[in-house]
Order: sequence, then structure tokens, then C-alpha cells
Amino acid sequence: MPELRKDPLTMRWVIIASERAKRPTDFQGGQSEPIPSFDPFAEGNEDKTPPEIAAYRAQNTKPNTPGWRVRVVPNKYPALQVEGDLNKHANGIYDRMHGLGAHEVIIETPLTIPTFTPLPDEHVQEILWMYRDRLLDLQRDTRLKYGMLFKNVGRAAGATIYHTHTQLIATPVVPRTIALKMQACREYYEYRERCLLSDMVEQEIEFQARVVLDTGAFVAFCPYAPRFPFETWIVPKFQSSHFEHLQAPEVSELARLLKRTLLKLEKGLNHPPYNYMLFTAPFRDGGGEYFRWHLEITPRLTPVAGFEWGTGFYINPVPPEEAAHFLRNVKV
Amino acid sequence: MPELRKDPLTMRWVIIASERAKRPTDFQGGQSEPIPSFDPFAEGNEDKTPPEIAAYRAQNTKPNTPGWRVRVVPNKYPALQVEGDLNKHANGIYDRMHGLGAHEVIIETPLTIPTFTPLPDEHVQEILWMYRDRLLDLQRDTRLKYGMLFKNVGRAAGATIYHTHTQLIATPVVPRTIALKMQACREYYEYRERCLLSDMVEQEIEFQARVVLDTGAFVAFCPYAPRFPFETWIVPKFQSSHFEHLQAPEVSELARLLKRTLLKLEKGLNHPPYNYMLFTAPFRDGGGEYFRWHLEITPRLTPVAGFEWGTGFYINPVPPEEAAHFLRNVKV
Repeated sequence: MPELRKDPLTMRWVIIASERAKRPTDFQGGQSEPIPSFDPFAEGNEDKTPPEIAAYRAQNTKPNTPGWRVRVVPNKYPALQVEGDLNKHANGIYDRMHGLGAHEVIIETPLTIPTFTPLPDEHVQEILWMYRDRLLDLQRDTRLKYGMLFKNVGRAAGATIYHTHTQLIATPVVPRTIALKMQACREYYEYRERCLLSDMVEQEIEFQARVVLDTGAFVAFCPYAPRFPFETWIVPKFQSSHFEHLQAPEVSELARLLKRTLLKLEKGLNHPPYNYMLFTAPFRDGGGEYFRWHLEITPRLTPVAGFEWGTGFYINPVPPEEAAHFLRNVKV
Repeated sequence: MPELRKDPLTMRWVIIASERAKRPTDFQGGQSEPIPSFDPFAEGNEDKTPPEIAAYRAQNTKPNTPGWRVRVVPNKYPALQVEGDLNKHANGIYDRMHGLGAHEVIIETPLTIPTFTPLPDEHVQEILWMYRDRLLDLQRDTRLKYGMLFKNVGRAAGATIYHTHTQLIATPVVPRTIALKMQACREYYEYRERCLLSDMVEQEIEFQARVVLDTGAFVAFCPYAPRFPFETWIVPKFQSSHFEHLQAPEVSELARLLKRTLLKLEKGLNHPPYNYMLFTAPFRDGGGEYFRWHLEITPRLTPVAGFEWGTGFYINPVPPEEAAHFLRNVKV
């Protein structure tokens, strides 16, 4: 019998339809993608991107020249633009405003590789430090309300450039998905005086069956009501609403955990296309007591079609307990 | 400057980023898909599907034999199952229930063709009558709360079978997307004593720039805040919350309008993959005063990636005014 499960964070129902299941080994998303003949993000091609906003680079090297390890540039085809004012106004019954915001690209390495998992842990730490730096910098602009860090790996996950990178889009409104999550957490807290994500972490650690990796300060698990096969979340075990409040020992541990989790997905599922999205609290939202930042990793192995678009329901053929069992056993 | 627009029905913001625009002729989604060597939905293969639930067929022909024009069967790999009870229960902090519901396939013609647009108007009318029949039949099951009719055309839109068909999934809960739309319409009505969709239709007809086709009782237009390039909605000009209340003259007109709208998309964009979804009010929801059923057609020409998944924001490079202008000029 299929099962309906509700995600308490988003109020989204999913259908766990294990009758439609395949074995994990049937989900072999990876068509290895061709290495492009020209890589605008490679070392030496710094003049092929807009001028850099920030970089970690060797001493005595100049901006927009080689010598960097992690480099941030504006998106060449930005979805939002940072100049101007919001100019909010009505259009009959409709509402609009200028598309003001920031759209940045964090180039994670000078090497032409499609993910950061081959890099040493110390390098992955620098990527996470850069996430933190950019959030801290953008939130000083009071016109901006939210910063979403996200990653597209593989064409089927929407990547248009092969070279591993993360994007950051900062918006002048709190996006609806975030607003709904914050609201669910606020209502949960008002009733119980506890953080919903804290209760989730506690139940997952006690139940164990959906846990993929459990370290001192973080846990990676397949959520109770996942939209996608092998969807995996990383949540801190301590109360922290804003990713940008991370401290050094936590960054080291998170880098190691994130890299190992991605390696399990890449190795176990033969390099599937995937996205990850960092959900942190809005820039000037308290959230401290009732919300925790978290990272959602979503392999893209099943199509999204009319039913999902129409209802917000998702059909997932792989129960998260099976997905977690499989991922736990992938050696990395 | 990009523009942020809000869809009042879903409270979803979209970014109209015309700086990223291409010409309509650049959106040539159509890789023509190979005709399959075996078609389980073709006439003569009635024993390759589960036994039929309903059919319009020639007199003196028997169920599950040739002679039908439109035929409904259960999905062979159903996401939900019709037997059993809901058995709602908690799982710690989580909620679940049995995956009870219906998952049907409306096979629209005995012919092995990928869309119904080559068929005569009278045949398209029969497809719409069958939509209505199935909704009326399923709503008699009081365990079911909602019926979503949807169509996937082309692999990139999630179609797994080439032969033109519509799916119907009936769920034991009102899906979140529908609940949010109903809520937005109820709140709008409480303030204004008018239906939001009625006001939208009125504004679109007055403004004209987003109208694709306008007939006596229906209008097809590109919505103010579309998620996807060339997204087109069909809305009745008269107050009607439930699709299944349609009467004969309306069915004739809608069949003609729907076919012409799809022909414009197929011809103008070289057979793009697309979905359509029929949003009707929940089975036992009044809705009469404040909600209108509507059909959303979404070509799938741009990727959906981490940003969209994370925020619920959509980036659309084609302003709906340009999309409508283009579609109006496609001769069919």
C-alpha cells in the first residue's frame, strides 16, 4: 500500500509509492558529461567573467589574475540587478517591483571539475567560509531580505556550466517557500516552546533508520517525507538560525560531513545530477529560538510532471528508510 | 531592469528577466520523439492495460475490445490505491496515512499520436466529456477530497508513454497548491465581494496585451506572473467553480479553444514538451462565488534548478506580453 506522509516544515504531502520502486542500483543518473573545450571559470580566464567581488588568493596576487582558490563574481546574466530602487507599485489587481537584488557565482576551485568532492577538506572549508562571507556582506544592504545559496550539478539539475560553482541570489522579498517554513516553525514553537527542526533531529537520531551520517555537531538524514529518491538533509544538532553565525570548529566538521555525504551520493548513484539549497533564516529575522538553518540535497533521478506542478504533491518511489540504508553502506 | 511580479492566486513571485531573453524562435523545444515499436494504448491492445473503467465506444462492442473512441483504465503502476481505509496516524512528530485514492489514465484516441490536436473538434469534446464523467464518478467516494486532471506531453515534461493521454489522480486530502489557491480566492472575496479569477479575466480582456484567444465564454491568456515562457491559462468568463458542472454548449466551445491554443504552442514552438493541469474546486467545497476552475498550460522550455526548488521563485526570460503577442500571430 502506498503511504502519504506530510513534511511538517512545508506542509507538503508526498506519496511514498514503493510499489513503483526500483532498486537503488537502477537509479544510475550519471551520464558523464563532456568536459567543455572552453572553461570561463578556470584559472587564467579571469577576464572572461565580470570583475571579482571577493576571493581567497595567494598573497601578493592581484584581483582578477591567477592565484585564487575560491573566487566570487557577479553572474554574467543576472536574474536580479543591484542598482536602482524597488519602485513598488500596483498594476490593476497585480503587484510588481523592480528586480533588485544580487546574483553572484562562487567559483569553488580553479580546476575544471564538476563537483568539489575531489578537493581536500581544507578547501571545502574555504568554500563554506566564502558562503558565510557573502551572506554577511549582502545582509548589510537593507533593501535585501534574503540570501539563497544553491548549487546545480549536472545538466538535468539545471547546470549550464560544467565547472563546480555555487550561486547566491539575494532577493528584496522573503521567498514564499522560506516564509512558509518560518511560519510552520513559529507556529510549532508557539504551541510547544520547542524548535521543530530540533525535534526532527532528536527523533531521527533516536529512530536511526533514516540517518546517513551522524557527527558531533551535525546529522545527515533522509527526511521523513522526501520529494525525491535519496533526498538528504544536513541539520545542526545545536540551535542556530543563521548559517552565517557558524564558528570555525563547526565549519571544519560541516565541510567534512558535507563532502562525505555528497561522495556517498556520487559514488552510490553513479554521479547523479543533483541540487542543494541552503535554507537559512531571513537576514533580519530573529528566528533564533524556533528555526535552524539546514541544507537540502536533492538528487534529480525522477521526472517532475503535471501532477507535481499542479498539486505540490510529490510521488517518490524510494522510502527514505531504504535510501538511508543504502547510503549508509556506501563506503567513502 | 528585471521585474518582480506576484501571482495573486498562489502568492508566488516570479522574476521576469528579459535581459536573459531569447527570441521566441530560439525556444525550439521539439526533438521529435521516436514512435514506439509497441503501443499499449493502441486499439487491439486492450488486454495490455488493466480492465477499463469507462469508455465511449461503438454500439454493440464489448468492454476491453476494439471499437472505443475514448477509454479510461486504472494506471498500471498507480501512485495511490482505491482499496482500504485511510488509517491516519502519527509517527512521533510526523503524520501519515494510507495512500488511498484513484489513479486513472484517460486514453484519448485509439491512434498512436502524441497529442490530440490532429483530432476533429468533436473528438476533443468527447475527451472533455470524459474528464467530466470521471470527476462526477470519483466524487461520489466520500473518502476522496480532490481530483486533479493533468497531461504530460513529451519526455522532458514527464511523459513515459508516447500515446496521447490524460491522467487523473484523486487524493484523500486537498493538495497544498489547491488549498493555497482556494484560500487566496476566499480572502480576496471576503474583502471585495468579487472573485479574484473574475477580476483577472476582466483586467486581461481590458488590457488585451496578454490575451491569446478570446471566445464567447472563455479566454486564453498568458498570466501576469508566469513561471514558464509561454505559460497560458484558460479561464471561463462566467462564474463556475467546478469543471464538472460544464454544459454542452460550453464543452463545444472549450474543445475548440483548447485545441487551437495547443496548436499555436505546438506550431509556434516546434512541438515543445508541455504539461497542462486542470484546477477545479475540491469535490465538496462550495467555492461557487469566489473561485473559478481554470486550466494552466506550461511549456517546459527552461530548466528548473536549485533556486526555484529552494525559494518557490521562478525566473522567466520571456515577458508574458511578448509571449502572447507571439502566440496571437501563430496561424492555426
